[in-house]
Amino acid sequence: MTSMSFKGMDIISISDLTKDQIEEILNLANKMIPYAKGEKTTKALEGRILANLFFEPSTRTRLSFESAMIRLGGSNIGITDHQNSSVAKGETLADTIRTVECYADAIVLRHPKEGAARLAAKFSEKPVINCGDGPGQHPTQTLVDLFTMKQEQGSMKDKNVVLVGDLKYGRTVHSLVEALALFGANLTFVAPDILQIPKESVKLLEKAGISINLERNLENVIADADVLYVTRIQKERFPDQSEYEKVAGSYKVDNTVLREAKKNLTIMHPLPRVDEIAPEVDYTENAKYFKQTFNAVPVRMAILSLIIGGQV
Amino acid sequence: MTSMSFKGMDIISISDLTKDQIEEILNLANKMIPYAKGEKTTKALEGRILANLFFEPSTRTRLSFESAMIRLGGSNIGITDHQNSSVAKGETLADTIRTVECYADAIVLRHPKEGAARLAAKFSEKPVINCGDGPGQHPTQTLVDLFTMKQEQGSMKDKNVVLVGDLKYGRTVHSLVEALALFGANLTFVAPDILQIPKESVKLLEKAGISINLERNLENVIADADVLYVTRIQKERFPDQSEYEKVAGSYKVDNTVLREAKKNLTIMHPLPRVDEIAPEVDYTENAKYFKQTFNAVPVRMAILSLIIGGQV
Amino acid sequence: MTSMSFKGMDIISISDLTKDQIEEILNLANKMIPYAKGEKTTKALEGRILANLFFEPSTRTRLSFESAMIRLGGSNIGITDHQNSSVAKGETLADTIRTVECYADAIVLRHPKEGAARLAAKFSEKPVINCGDGPGQHPTQTLVDLFTMKQEQGSMKDKNVVLVGDLKYGRTVHSLVEALALFGANLTFVAPDILQIPKESVKLLEKAGISINLERNLENVIADADVLYVTRIQKERFPDQSEYEKVAGSYKVDNTVLREAKKNLTIMHPLPRVDEIAPEVDYTENAKYFKQTFNAVPVRMAILSLIIGGQV
Repeated sequence: MTSMSFKGMDIISISDLTKDQIEEILNLANKMIPYAKGEKTTKALEGRILANLFFEPSTRTRLSFESAMIRLGGSNIGITDHQNSSVAKGETLADTIRTVECYADAIVLRHPKEGAARLAAKFSEKPVINCGDGPGQHPTQTLVDLFTMKQEQGSMKDKNVVLVGDLKYGRTVHSLVEALALFGANLTFVAPDILQIPKESVKLLEKAGISINLERNLENVIADADVLYVTRIQKERFPDQSEYEKVAGSYKVDNTVLREAKKNLTIMHPLPRVDEIAPEVDYTENAKYFKQTFNAVPVRMAILSLIIGGQV
Repeated sequence: MTSMSFKGMDIISISDLTKDQIEEILNLANKMIPYAKGEKTTKALEGRILANLFFEPSTRTRLSFESAMIRLGGSNIGITDHQNSSVAKGETLADTIRTVECYADAIVLRHPKEGAARLAAKFSEKPVINCGDGPGQHPTQTLVDLFTMKQEQGSMKDKNVVLVGDLKYGRTVHSLVEALALFGANLTFVAPDILQIPKESVKLLEKAGISINLERNLENVIADADVLYVTRIQKERFPDQSEYEKVAGSYKVDNTVLREAKKNLTIMHPLPRVDEIAPEVDYTENAKYFKQTFNAVPVRMAILSLIIGGQV
Repeated sequence: MTSMSFKGMDIISISDLTKDQIEEILNLANKMIPYAKGEKTTKALEGRILANLFFEPSTRTRLSFESAMIRLGGSNIGITDHQNSSVAKGETLADTIRTVECYADAIVLRHPKEGAARLAAKFSEKPVINCGDGPGQHPTQTLVDLFTMKQEQGSMKDKNVVLVGDLKYGRTVHSLVEALALFGANLTFVAPDILQIPKESVKLLEKAGISINLERNLENVIADADVLYVTRIQKERFPDQSEYEKVAGSYKVDNTVLREAKKNLTIMHPLPRVDEIAPEVDYTENAKYFKQTFNAVPVRMAILSLIIGGQV
């Protein structure tokens, strides 16, 4: 396994990557940190162009990819408003992709329809990175999350990862769980019944020999957690608003909930948050969600340099 | 004729360029291909800034200019949403242009009003490139089209170019026809009566000694065509939708239509297409519209380096 | 006072800067002119990233900052449409800022709410530049204005600066007046009563020993003016439109009004203008508003290089 194997590769789903490939990306990401901070500069991707196609809004994914490309010496072009693009004139995604690949060395795509990224990769000769296709995958976010966990906890083998919030629709959760299974973590899913992790996911994880635990209350499991991964619960998921009001509070992380927690608990959130984590938690040693936000840059730098082919 | 003559020059209409100047641009574009592909890098326009002002949406023109500028080592700034700009505060185009030229080395302008680019050039000391002013000219698209034809067919002298679709309102057609006349091509116009090429254009072409042919059916002329240039027919042009349904099919290019075609027929389209060209045609050797899309980069690189003044 | 004192500094209000600091910025801006024009190039901020966050539209502030960053060898990322950002998902400004600072070396912020920039600076470890927070400050515009006045008039000590238009709500006026007081100019405020400079400002200026003059008619004071600083009067400020019609004309600057003016009068406007200055004035030697527009680049280059820390 050398980095040559990545050149030109599409990153569509976390399951396209072997454990070895994931580890190679994370190792390289670690080397990228001083470049991501601007402490060192590189011209690895000088003259290279990343096309950022966002057919759905995404501030942090877009800005972190743009930042990653610039920190590597490269440049960005993009679409952030699909209503101002030729898509509005009725163009197919296949045509848009075959057009944009003429102007760039790699394509980042967020699209509302599941399967869009796979289709784009089929039509593009340039590598395509899936940044969310509807309810589907967002593999680079998973790599950022995994990188942060390993940075804070070392090996994830037998570590207790508690995932809390919307585990049914939350896009980041499904890819992450798949990766965590690969690295041998124990998984606890805390959610109200209607937002609990889908049964098929549970079956797959059990088949893979992963220790699984389903819970309704965070209080019951917080003491044993090594990592607490919080996601947003969207009001709109509840048919009845009063139902939402009833559960929302039980999934809020504040200093009271954390009294029982391990000293070195790592608290993460893919952000943006609304009120799932109280601001008081920001000032604890456990809050790692802004570090996780920063980690998007070195991890995406690693991916871009591997698939476009620049040596840092 | 040396390239010095281009420095600071506005590109407003294809008729502003002599045949010699067009050939100089196309020759330079040919040299730009490896740079446009990212196989070679240059810093010809390092530190230089292109201002892309799009007061009407245009994904591919904007992205290809941005790509061209970056491949030359330069950078871009721009407006893509006129509703978010000072234009919305009632500023005149003359003031906007005199402002933006303070921040850039050249200006690319798309504007809904005919004559806007000429006005902008009058007020700007920096070179202005017209990328479409309402029903008016889009000269760099014409150069891209001409470059592609010559690349595929060699000399255009006495070559049969068949233009099909909306020849009345289609912006790209009028400039292209002017250029093709200069290079001695024979022209066939295939369109329903209400979208046929305007009579004044026909008169001008005949006066210039160009062989002209007006047709209603593609089948009648496909066998002799060296180049088939397809444009989109917009439903909105027809007062009666049933009228549209009646004609639309006769101008659709598919493999059945192409059975009678020459082996080395070049099929082009300025894109985006809706259904004027069937997807099955994409897999033929004749389909050159994505190559044409790519050619936007080297041709625009040639123009930018000539008018801003960087040596590659 | 060395430039080291600026590194990492926030620029929130003009009153945060000492007279010495303002002079250091303006001196450095003067050295930046050939770089701003593209006559010289520098890589002072190579690999560095400026995040431009515009939660309100602002073409010229945004484009001039982007241009300044590029002329210094750096790059830009940004948000121009807050409706397409995570702010739309309910994120707090504190979270947005702590996210964006992970991707950049400095942050430029325009926000509709007064105090937003100060809040952002509190949460950001990277320097924050306030580019307008509602009715509040826009300190870099003030520095651009001051730079232009000193460029045209030399020392501002005892120079007569006439400010005309909307002196009550006009954001640029309040910061500018503060700076002019520091440099010893005499100030005349010409406005209809309902748009006249607020009484608290007058008191503060008088306390500082500044010569103040309030006027209703431009004609009364034009003859003695060294600088005429014109701002837009917005119709919407008047409860009664007929009231607007009555006064609007009296504050319009045209060649007739200027007949009484000094030969070397400097006419300025922060732009965009609607009809406060007649186009005929553009052709006079006194019109310096487009020079003022250009000056945004060298002044912002000076600020960026000082607070990010690159040596030109």
